[in-house]
Order: sequence, then C-alpha cells, then structure tokens
Amino acid sequence: MDEFARIQYWTSERQSAHWQHSRGTVLGIGDDAAVLDFNSAQDGIVGERRQLLVSDTMVEQVHFTEQTMRDEHIGYKALAANVSDIAAMGGVPLHAVVSVCVPATWGPERMKSIYDGLYACAEQYGVAIVGGDTTSSPAHLVISVSLTGAVEAGKEIMRSGARPGDVVFVTGPVGLSAGGLHVLQGASANKRHAEKVSDPDCRALVAAHQQPAPSILAGRLLLRSGICHSLNDVSDGLASEAWEIAEASGLRIVLEERLMPKSGSMSAYASSVGSDPLEWMLYGGEDYVLVGTMDRSGVTALKAEFHRHGLPFYVIGKTEEGSPGVEWIPLPHGWNGRNSGVDEMALLRTSLPKRGFNHFGT
Amino acid sequence: MDEFARIQYWTSERQSAHWQHSRGTVLGIGDDAAVLDFNSAQDGIVGERRQLLVSDTMVEQVHFTEQTMRDEHIGYKALAANVSDIAAMGGVPLHAVVSVCVPATWGPERMKSIYDGLYACAEQYGVAIVGGDTTSSPAHLVISVSLTGAVEAGKEIMRSGARPGDVVFVTGPVGLSAGGLHVLQGASANKRHAEKVSDPDCRALVAAHQQPAPSILAGRLLLRSGICHSLNDVSDGLASEAWEIAEASGLRIVLEERLMPKSGSMSAYASSVGSDPLEWMLYGGEDYVLVGTMDRSGVTALKAEFHRHGLPFYVIGKTEEGSPGVEWIPLPHGWNGRNSGVDEMALLRTSLPKRGFNHFGT
Repeated sequence: MDEFARIQYWTSERQSAHWQHSRGTVLGIGDDAAVLDFNSAQDGIVGERRQLLVSDTMVEQVHFTEQTMRDEHIGYKALAANVSDIAAMGGVPLHAVVSVCVPATWGPERMKSIYDGLYACAEQYGVAIVGGDTTSSPAHLVISVSLTGAVEAGKEIMRSGARPGDVVFVTGPVGLSAGGLHVLQGASANKRHAEKVSDPDCRALVAAHQQPAPSILAGRLLLRSGICHSLNDVSDGLASEAWEIAEASGLRIVLEERLMPKSGSMSAYASSVGSDPLEWMLYGGEDYVLVGTMDRSGVTALKAEFHRHGLPFYVIGKTEEGSPGVEWIPLPHGWNGRNSGVDEMALLRTSLPKRGFNHFGT
Repeated sequence: MDEFARIQYWTSERQSAHWQHSRGTVLGIGDDAAVLDFNSAQDGIVGERRQLLVSDTMVEQVHFTEQTMRDEHIGYKALAANVSDIAAMGGVPLHAVVSVCVPATWGPERMKSIYDGLYACAEQYGVAIVGGDTTSSPAHLVISVSLTGAVEAGKEIMRSGARPGDVVFVTGPVGLSAGGLHVLQGASANKRHAEKVSDPDCRALVAAHQQPAPSILAGRLLLRSGICHSLNDVSDGLASEAWEIAEASGLRIVLEERLMPKSGSMSAYASSVGSDPLEWMLYGGEDYVLVGTMDRSGVTALKAEFHRHGLPFYVIGKTEEGSPGVEWIPLPHGWNGRNSGVDEMALLRTSLPKRGFNHFGT
C-alpha cells in the first residue's frame, strides 16, 4: 500500500460529503489545501464571527506509551486536547488537519486504529477532518492536530479577563486522569496490581486518562452567561492553569480544599495504594475540564443551568487584588465538615507552587 | 528557562501587534487559542472569500539531517512547504500555528535558530504566527506547521480541473533541490567533494534545497488569468505531481524533455559527478515550483505577464484524452536542437513511472 492508498484506507467514507458540507467544507482531504466556507458553517454562532485556531501534539514516550494508551485512545485524545482549547475560549470546533509521523515498523492497520479514535472524537464534537500530512518517523509516533473553531466576535473568553472579587470555578473534578495514569503504570509494573484495573473505581480513572471528555457545551454556557471573565482548560494541572489566569489578569487566586470536588473513585484508589490524591488534583493535568472566574452574582443561576444540562459546576475559590499568584487553603486534619471551622482554616493559607507538567523543567 | 520562558524567548517581539492586526489577528500567541478576524484580513482577496487550510511536517532523519540543513533552514523550509501548498490553490497565506517536538538534549538556543528561520519565512510571505504547541521529544526533532490562507470563492485551482487539449506548464526549473541534496550528502561523506560546495554552481543547488522559494505571486497570476485549469506544487517530484493531476482529472499528460527547463548549474554539477540530472528533475521533489495545465490560447499573454513580474514560465507538455497517466518524450541521443526532429521524437514516447518521494514505498 503506498502513501495515497494508506490515506484512503484510513480516511475514506468516514464523514459524508453532505455532513462535511454542513460544516462549511467546500473541498476536503485530497488536494494541496482544504477549501472552507468559514462564514456559512452551521455551527450555531450568532452574528459577527471570529475564527479560533489551535494546535496540539502528542508524542510517544512523552504523552503515552504502549502501556498507557491503546491506538484508538491516542487518536481520540489527540483531537480531544484541541477541542478542549476551543471550549476554553467559549467557541465551537469546526475543521481539523492531522499530521502523523508513523514509525517505519508500523503496518497500515495500527494507524487505522489511530484514525478510528480520531474519527470517533470528530463525530462526538462535530469536527470535519479536512486534510493533513503523513510522513514516516525514524523512531516514535508523533501525532499533531490543528483545529479551527468559531466564536461570536468580542465574546471569546480569554485568560486575562479575571477581576478581583470573582469566584473561581471548575466544570468537573480534577485529578482523575493522573489517577488513571497511576493505575496504568502500576498495572504494567506489577502483576498483582494489574488485577485491580478491572475494579469499577480504577476503570473510571483509566477512562478519564484514555478518553477525556472536554465539554464544548460548558464553554458555550459560560460565554452566553456574559459574566464569565476568564477561562482556561486544565491540560497542565489545576495549579498551573490557575497561575496562568492570575498572571495574565494581574491578581491573586485563592483556592480552598474544602470546596474542591473529590472523585470517590479517585479517593478510594489513592487510599488503597497509599498515594495523595491532592498531588494528582493540583498537578496532574490532562483533565480537560474548564477552570475560570466569574461574577459572584450569577453563580446560582449558572450552576442551575449547568445542572439542567447534566453538567457539574463547582465554586472552588475566589480572586483578590494583589501580586499575581495562587494561594491554597488546605483542610485541617480532622475537620468535621462544618462551616464553623472556616475562619480558622484561613490561617493555614499558603502559596501554591507554580508548577505543572512542564516539558522543560522549571 | 521553563516552557513559557522559552516560548517567549523564541517568539516575542518578532512581529508587531500593528502588523499582526493588519493580517486579521485579534489575539495571537499566549492563550488557549488564537482569535482571528478572517473576514477583514488585508490580503488582497476581492469579493466573497474562502478559507484554505494546510499542514506539513518535517522530521529529522527523514526530511533533513545535521549534514543537510542548518537550524534556520529547518524553520524556514517547514513554513515554506506550507506556503507552497497555499500557492498551489491560487491563494494567499495568512496565519500559522507551529508545533515543535524538541529533543531533550537541545538547549533553548538551537530552537531560537529554528524560529529565526520560521520568522524569516513568515516575513517573506506575510504570515502571522499566532500559536502552537511545544513538547519534548525522546529522540528526533519534529516540526509541524499548519497554515491558513484565503482565496476568492469558486476561483481556487484544484488538481482535478485539467481538460484535454490543455498545455502543461511549470513555473520554474525542477531538480535543483535534489541536486543540492546530492551536493550536501556528498560533502558530508567525502572531504575532496566538500571543497566543491563553495562553487557557485553548487551553492545555487544547495540554496534551492535549504531555502526553497515558493511563489504566491505565481499562483495569484494563474488564478487571475481565469484559464488555469489545474495546479499542484512540486513537493514530491514532477512525475508524481503530474500523475496526481492526470488521475484527479481523468486524462493523459505528455511531457517533452526538449521543453524542460534545465538549470545550467544542475547540469554542470551532475556531469562533474557522473549523475543523471533527469532523475532529480522527475523524481527529486521539494522544488516548490508550480505545475499545472491551462488553456492553450492564453499562454503567450500569461507568459509575458510572468516575465513582466520577473517570474519564469515554461510550457513542458500537453494533455490528451485517454486513460489517466503520464507519458514522456525523451530527447534522442545527439539531437541537433532543431524542430525538424520533433516528429521522430514522438516515436520515443514512453510511459513515465508513477513514483516520487513516497513515505511508504510503492
């Protein structure tokens, strides 16, 4: 099978011409460039539109190994990471190009599984795959996806818009993906541990790592509310994302442990292996939920709207005037869960180190 | 230097906010996504517009080695290859996102040189760099660029539009890049050969390989002519690109050796090393000139217009009805250069194998 035959094998008859057309695709895979009718895509954008453009790369050994991700998961997650960036602006995703560097030892079948995952994710989020590039790789698999999106002009939610007095929220629990990675790495290292992977708790964590579920709807609800001032997706860990908002907006963020959603599966697994789930929650990354800040007055209504759509929404802290940074109010040992302890808790307030998954150390 | 500091070091103050704005950039590097005003970019597109989207990846060991490309060249060529795809649709380039996988052993300085090349190419072609992704790599450098462009709606030039009776043209000589690669590989293998590299002939070939010069203007002139029926850029070799047009358009292409532009530098170098330049011309690739077909009646005027703009233009063959394929009329040995031999030459007509640089063999 030559290069063109392989691309055909991986991509043909995956998305109908009619459906691609509804996304604004004039000419998809197969020429020098995709041709897109950006202005007429049926994407729900009302009025004047702006385009969003993102790119995200996954590298074997760095982002995944054969032990942690099946081929379908690699394709799924490579696109989902980009979708998450579009969600974090309040936009909707439209068109993707996919560049893959395929190890010389791979036959066409394995790459087909990668594309199975890519197209499953594309279907989930309404993304038209319109082109890309296929090269051989001397060693590892590299998959790089670029994605366009659309958003109402002037409504895009940046990380620099937080205001003092905002509440800080997340649109789902964090730390599950890092917990899932811990499960998978333990399973590959230790046979007794491997039996654990089929526990329902472990399965939930592994699913969070292998098939993340960014929510475009969450971003759209936040944009439409008109009172969401800043937004990031949690790709490099909650602490790192909060730092980005604090620095870009020039203020202090205070997060409270007692307000943080804690997945029961994560806590159960962490305690069974003697790990601290807080490390996963703050520094794990790849959760692909949204973290942001908004006007306090609208919280009740927005939370109710999230719940009506079956989406979680948690207030986890607040913003303050001050030199840019992130602070953390931990739970005291033996806290009884009553609010009466909250004032004393504030005394435990401490600075949260600025780190996350950083490709070049700190 | 952490990841953010590195990205700053590589990208900040390279393109002014004012200039980025003129290209339609609302928000560039630094948030989850770039925000672009696609409709108002000052790019010379008249009337209703379509968007173009391309992606191209360069991999160490596959596309280049330390012997064949300096770091600036790698960055320059990674973007230029994408610009060439936009030119091949008749469009203008606008916004790029750059994903790099950087070997763990590289310090920030080498990557800065890659970005020097990227920004030099971006300046040359008016491309706004608006985002990307930076990851570490366990082994080789991988650089993946995605590029948007714009084109007048319905005017984009596809490879499927060739008609029987068209002439086939190229917008520059081919084979120089492959000749340059031969120079560079010979130089790294052989010290006596290394002295040759400073010959003017060799320098011209090496420059073609290291800093290709796709022409957006050539694509625009072809689009505006209204009689260019099909177009490809020569990235995988002339034979391969001609085959693509023939198969997409459902006709036969006949190329004539006597009509092919032959670079004097290439011929001189090839004869000095006993190589056949025809192999480089037909199967070398990475020339990034345009090959296409057009209405015969407009050739004289269009050629004159190319020349007025200092651009070369060569008719190298024609199209015919017939089963899709590419045929080749070679020069007979000892041809005297007169047209009187052309009829006899046609008897030498032969099929041109469908191959080129193919990442998975044939």
